[in-house]
Amino acid sequence: MKMSEGVEWGLHACALLARLPEGQTMAARDLAEFFDLPPAYLLKNLRHLARAGVLHTSPGPRGGYRLAQPAEELTLLDVVVAIEGGGNAYHCAEIRQRGPSALDRSAYPEPCGIASAMWRAEEAWRTSLAGVSIADLAEMGRREVPREQRERANEWLGLVRARRG
Amino acid sequence: MKMSEGVEWGLHACALLARLPEGQTMAARDLAEFFDLPPAYLLKNLRHLARAGVLHTSPGPRGGYRLAQPAEELTLLDVVVAIEGGGNAYHCAEIRQRGPSALDRSAYPEPCGIASAMWRAEEAWRTSLAGVSIADLAEMGRREVPREQRERANEWLGLVRARRG
Repeated sequence: MKMSEGVEWGLHACALLARLPEGQTMAARDLAEFFDLPPAYLLKNLRHLARAGVLHTSPGPRGGYRLAQPAEELTLLDVVVAIEGGGNAYHCAEIRQRGPSALDRSAYPEPCGIASAMWRAEEAWRTSLAGVSIADLAEMGRREVPREQRERANEWLGLVRARRG
Repeated sequence: MKMSEGVEWGLHACALLARLPEGQTMAARDLAEFFDLPPAYLLKNLRHLARAGVLHTSPGPRGGYRLAQPAEELTLLDVVVAIEGGGNAYHCAEIRQRGPSALDRSAYPEPCGIASAMWRAEEAWRTSLAGVSIADLAEMGRREVPREQRERANEWLGLVRARRG
């Protein structure tokens, strides 16, 4: 079971956008350049994030993406659901209702216990994801990313701002 | 992100095998009949379970599958890993090491914080799955499956035993 690489891109993009000064945006092509990612495919993921209310997008040559909400209020779960969808990974096809011993559908008022146990585990996963905010990611970045990289990133962000005029 | 339907089949098959008297086996074709599943595709999943040490398989016309360990010692996680593989769903391509601000690889001795947070959530999911045994599933079945279905299942299991001689 594999998550799409768009989740990694989306999380890193959100962590970077959390570093922008209030109200500033970044163009998709600049985000793609920063992470050395294919712009068209990154754009697809940014659009998913905008549609889900994680990012705000403004049109025009000086438009771009910013977080749609304070970084403290957006979580890993929001990004994962925006890109992967919010459904359960385990699908219950009700195989207990098949075969030679099965009864009429009405005999099964409760969800299958096996499915319920599988979905409880997915709920534990979601709870963990919902416990980490984009602000936490940005803070981790400040602690973990080497000082030299942070300086180079800030320099690059300054160049990008200058380029956009 | 979707789990293969083989996980549902494997879990139900294990819960059924947990009901067999000590030492008895069930043929793959009988398991397929009980759940009304395509035999060849179910067999593929049973083989994954056998390879992972969840099921024991014995050859010959009266051979078949049984749990390889006591049902109390096998968990949902064992079945999921046997069928889906044990890797993480989130893959970290180290995109922090890309783009104009990246440094030499040696500047990143620690795992990426974003990946670590994603993997902690997967660990919470695994912990939940590892907390439910196949014996628990079988016990749930005894409580949840309508009495009439359990009787019909036992009758069918008797027929299968008779058929195998």
